[in-house]
Amino acid sequence: MKLQLATWQEVEAYLQRSTGIIVPIGSTEQHGPNGLVGTDAICPEAIAWALGERYEVLVAPTQSLGVAQHHLAFPGTLSLRPSTLIAVLRDTVTSLARHGFTHVMLLNGHGGNIATVNAAFAEIYAERDGAPGGELHLSLCNWFAGPRVRELAGSLYGQAEGSHATASEVSLSWFARPEAVKRVAMSPRIAPSGTALCDAETFRRRFPDGRMGSDPSLASVEHGARFLEAGVADAWEAYQGFLAGQ
Amino acid sequence: MKLQLATWQEVEAYLQRSTGIIVPIGSTEQHGPNGLVGTDAICPEAIAWALGERYEVLVAPTQSLGVAQHHLAFPGTLSLRPSTLIAVLRDTVTSLARHGFTHVMLLNGHGGNIATVNAAFAEIYAERDGAPGGELHLSLCNWFAGPRVRELAGSLYGQAEGSHATASEVSLSWFARPEAVKRVAMSPRIAPSGTALCDAETFRRRFPDGRMGSDPSLASVEHGARFLEAGVADAWEAYQGFLAGQ
Amino acid sequence: MKLQLATWQEVEAYLQRSTGIIVPIGSTEQHGPNGLVGTDAICPEAIAWALGERYEVLVAPTQSLGVAQHHLAFPGTLSLRPSTLIAVLRDTVTSLARHGFTHVMLLNGHGGNIATVNAAFAEIYAERDGAPGGELHLSLCNWFAGPRVRELAGSLYGQAEGSHATASEVSLSWFARPEAVKRVAMSPRIAPSGTALCDAETFRRRFPDGRMGSDPSLASVEHGARFLEAGVADAWEAYQGFLAGQ
Amino acid sequence: MKLQLATWQEVEAYLQRSTGIIVPIGSTEQHGPNGLVGTDAICPEAIAWALGERYEVLVAPTQSLGVAQHHLAFPGTLSLRPSTLIAVLRDTVTSLARHGFTHVMLLNGHGGNIATVNAAFAEIYAERDGAPGGELHLSLCNWFAGPRVRELAGSLYGQAEGSHATASEVSLSWFARPEAVKRVAMSPRIAPSGTALCDAETFRRRFPDGRMGSDPSLASVEHGARFLEAGVADAWEAYQGFLAGQ
Amino acid sequence: MKLQLATWQEVEAYLQRSTGIIVPIGSTEQHGPNGLVGTDAICPEAIAWALGERYEVLVAPTQSLGVAQHHLAFPGTLSLRPSTLIAVLRDTVTSLARHGFTHVMLLNGHGGNIATVNAAFAEIYAERDGAPGGELHLSLCNWFAGPRVRELAGSLYGQAEGSHATASEVSLSWFARPEAVKRVAMSPRIAPSGTALCDAETFRRRFPDGRMGSDPSLASVEHGARFLEAGVADAWEAYQGFLAGQ
Amino acid sequence: MKLQLATWQEVEAYLQRSTGIIVPIGSTEQHGPNGLVGTDAICPEAIAWALGERYEVLVAPTQSLGVAQHHLAFPGTLSLRPSTLIAVLRDTVTSLARHGFTHVMLLNGHGGNIATVNAAFAEIYAERDGAPGGELHLSLCNWFAGPRVRELAGSLYGQAEGSHATASEVSLSWFARPEAVKRVAMSPRIAPSGTALCDAETFRRRFPDGRMGSDPSLASVEHGARFLEAGVADAWEAYQGFLAGQ
Repeated sequence: MKLQLATWQEVEAYLQRSTGIIVPIGSTEQHGPNGLVGTDAICPEAIAWALGERYEVLVAPTQSLGVAQHHLAFPGTLSLRPSTLIAVLRDTVTSLARHGFTHVMLLNGHGGNIATVNAAFAEIYAERDGAPGGELHLSLCNWFAGPRVRELAGSLYGQAEGSHATASEVSLSWFARPEAVKRVAMSPRIAPSGTALCDAETFRRRFPDGRMGSDPSLASVEHGARFLEAGVADAWEAYQGFLAGQ
Repeated sequence: MKLQLATWQEVEAYLQRSTGIIVPIGSTEQHGPNGLVGTDAICPEAIAWALGERYEVLVAPTQSLGVAQHHLAFPGTLSLRPSTLIAVLRDTVTSLARHGFTHVMLLNGHGGNIATVNAAFAEIYAERDGAPGGELHLSLCNWFAGPRVRELAGSLYGQAEGSHATASEVSLSWFARPEAVKRVAMSPRIAPSGTALCDAETFRRRFPDGRMGSDPSLASVEHGARFLEAGVADAWEAYQGFLAGQ
Repeated sequence: MKLQLATWQEVEAYLQRSTGIIVPIGSTEQHGPNGLVGTDAICPEAIAWALGERYEVLVAPTQSLGVAQHHLAFPGTLSLRPSTLIAVLRDTVTSLARHGFTHVMLLNGHGGNIATVNAAFAEIYAERDGAPGGELHLSLCNWFAGPRVRELAGSLYGQAEGSHATASEVSLSWFARPEAVKRVAMSPRIAPSGTALCDAETFRRRFPDGRMGSDPSLASVEHGARFLEAGVADAWEAYQGFLAGQ
Repeated sequence: MKLQLATWQEVEAYLQRSTGIIVPIGSTEQHGPNGLVGTDAICPEAIAWALGERYEVLVAPTQSLGVAQHHLAFPGTLSLRPSTLIAVLRDTVTSLARHGFTHVMLLNGHGGNIATVNAAFAEIYAERDGAPGGELHLSLCNWFAGPRVRELAGSLYGQAEGSHATASEVSLSWFARPEAVKRVAMSPRIAPSGTALCDAETFRRRFPDGRMGSDPSLASVEHGARFLEAGVADAWEAYQGFLAGQ
Repeated sequence: MKLQLATWQEVEAYLQRSTGIIVPIGSTEQHGPNGLVGTDAICPEAIAWALGERYEVLVAPTQSLGVAQHHLAFPGTLSLRPSTLIAVLRDTVTSLARHGFTHVMLLNGHGGNIATVNAAFAEIYAERDGAPGGELHLSLCNWFAGPRVRELAGSLYGQAEGSHATASEVSLSWFARPEAVKRVAMSPRIAPSGTALCDAETFRRRFPDGRMGSDPSLASVEHGARFLEAGVADAWEAYQGFLAGQ
Repeated sequence: MKLQLATWQEVEAYLQRSTGIIVPIGSTEQHGPNGLVGTDAICPEAIAWALGERYEVLVAPTQSLGVAQHHLAFPGTLSLRPSTLIAVLRDTVTSLARHGFTHVMLLNGHGGNIATVNAAFAEIYAERDGAPGGELHLSLCNWFAGPRVRELAGSLYGQAEGSHATASEVSLSWFARPEAVKRVAMSPRIAPSGTALCDAETFRRRFPDGRMGSDPSLASVEHGARFLEAGVADAWEAYQGFLAGQ
């Protein structure tokens, strides 16, 4: 069930049976020679929409922009400052809490968002502390870090999976948007590894084509279908545990 | 050409032939008994995507959340504070300008965003004033206010068009998302009119089912197809004029 | 009744009979060769003070600085960032609401403030949403857009009225400050037209002497007296309607 | 020379002979039973306008709102948060510096502004540090603390001068606005003394009628004329020293 | 009693007998040729710790960074923007108030902090105004301005005390950190005097070795011991008066 | 070499041989029945000071307050909002970069700071992006996560180490502050485990005495001495690698 495609009366009815919601969050940033700029948003969105269909959980609109400061030296990257993303998440959660939602799970597709999302949770709890307003629980689930997804990536790609513009995320994004599959040869086949904790110019010097430790030429739509299933199973488990207070 | 479905090298190539981009912006808010919560984002997104396909203009990810404070008493509405949306737009434009984009047109689907978008433009110009950085032009185009769209709405619905949850926007959103068409009888047929410049509780008292002056039961997918064409023509004209410095 | 000339006991007594107040807001910005830098503040202030005298409505101090980013390439212009003006209006309204004022009408003299004032209203409603605090209604009245004022300007100047540094506002400011009348020949007689939605340097290139589409050499103190009467009638009507909940 | 009554060409001409400007700043807050809510803005404005006339120094519009948090339990008080006033002063100074002003002196009428004005100066210097932009000097002059003013107040009122709603400021405001003279008996004749560094409710308990240690029934228009002369001499001396780099 | 060395249960027990706390606040900034960069933090910390030991008052961790913008042209200076320090103090006080502390006294070692601390107090009172939350009193005590300290400095150094990098503060910091005593000849013996209200580059031009009007070669550990006693007596008197509501 | 105990000339001399600096950062928060409120600041400070002595690396003052929102239901906890800590770190780094420091390593003692520190790094890089200013590298080192420290904790405590108020950090803080050793029996011996990603009231319900999964009654000063050595070796290795650009 997509929030964008519901009427307010349907949301009102949903709240009678559940006060949980999933918010996909990604990034708009370079993903190497054959990865889509929207990869990090498309992947969690695809998993969230599948959850919405299969389990009738409500799915909010995808937050497509994230914190991608270190990718800004590559054209097409859009980055929010951490302070901006904190404000966006605060307003989103505040709106949801006003309607009676008590459990908000962010389904995230971008490692660079993790720090800011956790900072946002602390900021939100701080603002609400001592103020009127009911119970509120916040949770972050990174689809790419779930146990089934990690196992599948390991079995398919081993060390060539890498850490940015990976074959797993490229596969899933292609499965979700088959019209955008790109076939590009990689040189070197496996990109250099290293840390992304640096400024934009340094990042581009370290990782000239944008990939980090990966060989996304291994990606395929067929793999993407399997990553979707793994991601759905991981995320549903996480969501169920979250609702159960674990 | 969707930014999310491009690689960074494709964006780099695009910048060789054009430094303009369209950013759809909407809202996630109640749209009455048969209108989708995502109406205001879906409509400009549909027009922008059509522009992207027909004219090869680059289209950024849709900013699905807008300023919808006065709709917050209806479940499902998500609202950003104006200060938050200003920050989002500043970061978006700053990222684009870094890559060399010089003309950024927001294609907007929500009247309640107009004030904040214009405030954001002034804030962005203020921040850049006197700082290093090249030429930058910003423009706002409201699809619902274009001449062809207004004429079509007038001819189809007359006074029953209203000003929120209108038959025109419901039609266009249904055309873009036919799986979400809802058939709901309206009572009264035409909703009460008045001003939306008030707080959330007052708004709900004034407009009990969320509509303002409209009869969206007149909406249809067929009308939506015509609104798409009218909107594409209006927006393309606006974008061409913008690039030409008019 | 001017707030600045009252004692707190007189304000306390006023609140027994009315909880409405008018806040003049303008800008400090170039107004062409014969217009005063303070035009946009002086005009609504003059109308508000007349309302205060004739109808015993309380008038707050004038907010003389507004959002004038695009005029900054002309000496003498002072501009607040939108975020700053939002904070000023929030603090002003919060102070008034603390004392029991329920209806605050901004009487505005600057088109460039409209977006930010409306954004500020949404920001204020958002901050108060769900927090303790009583009824609050906010309204914006642009003196230059009232029906009687527009009709008078049309009859006196026709197309030569223009949109910035207009003969109507120059007339009213001269009537309010006759010691500052300036006689300057205009060249060309009617200034070029166009959009002010651009940065400061672009604006100055488009509008070399600061006027937009106007011939303010038509202005006179006598016209100013008539604009005052028209403006008072328009604003009083708007204020009455506002108090009546229309 | 009042900025509000000048054209931009007149400001341009002024900058040829001087790059200094005076900005009056006050507060809108209760001043006891016979003092005007606008006292703190009216006093420095009167002195600044006299300086403008006598010495042809440019005078900016008065910043009528200041930090008056502790007076908020008295109706009519309007208070800016310190963070808001810092933003206002930053934008004002940034605008002036853009035009080439190098010396900005705030002429202040409210003790409660001193801390925030000094904080704003540090904030402005921090923002400009290392950024492009020319020489800039900022100065704060409190009219009520000048040597001639203090001597006059001592000779006229001795201990009955007090520290808020003083006879000296009431006198000067009455001289500047003789239409607003109020005759009110004080009880007790001299108000209690103490510290204003507390919250609004505590302040009102400590100082029930708003005065602090003063007997403003001693005020008169005639005294006001003498305070104007003393204030003009003090402020002119301060401004001259400021321009001379002392 | 140092907060950092207590357990939460010990703090809970403390709150049964007292709801007052002392927060040392200083700066990290150049203090001339023989003064420590940490002087302004070390001095109030030493006094606060002595108070904690002798009178069992709880002492919070020292806020070592303050507003030192004008010292930034000297290596080693760290400066917070006023807006940052306001946020730090707001969060500190909000945390303390949540636990039931009602009286928070800042024991300050840096003149440049005074403005911002007072601005922060107004900001904190403004945020709490009208919101739920109990009694809260805030106080600022500048150790260097206490009567006993001033008398001792006058008797030991007379005019050579100066106003920055003074012999009194250097003495006290050496007494607190004897391992860091530096013997450096001063040239000129007494540094130039003037105002620190300027930007960093101007400050360094005015005060080439960082001292203002002082001869800190007069400092000694023995003097430091006497300043500690004077400072403890002054601060204890201030704290007692504060708790007593004076 | 402690920055607080240096003169500015000594810092100037240091910059001739190194442009790296270590900034200890911790938190002020409950650490269970026998752990100090200052544990998270004391531990990295002790390691940093040892590095400063042994290797002559410059050590900035400790940032003693961190993000401890979820500990606020225990008396004595002081928490900064993430947005506040971001501002503090931005100002600290900006000051250091102005002096020519190019490598700033935060040595952190609190898991709850990691997200905000990483968000701050992105915010700092975003602010500097495109602005004038030289090379800058930022790094975060968590002393408690170093390989030698983890191995030692595993060998000494196994599963009883836990994740908050751990025996390892209590040991190190006791070694650094032996005067504050507390002997308290734990009940249950090993505290419950779970997630700290919740609000303050929920955290206290989950972890009634503040510990998470730990048995800090195993702590000892002797263990602390070993943790210091392990922490020094881990942090020195991290710092060396950081300077070498790894």
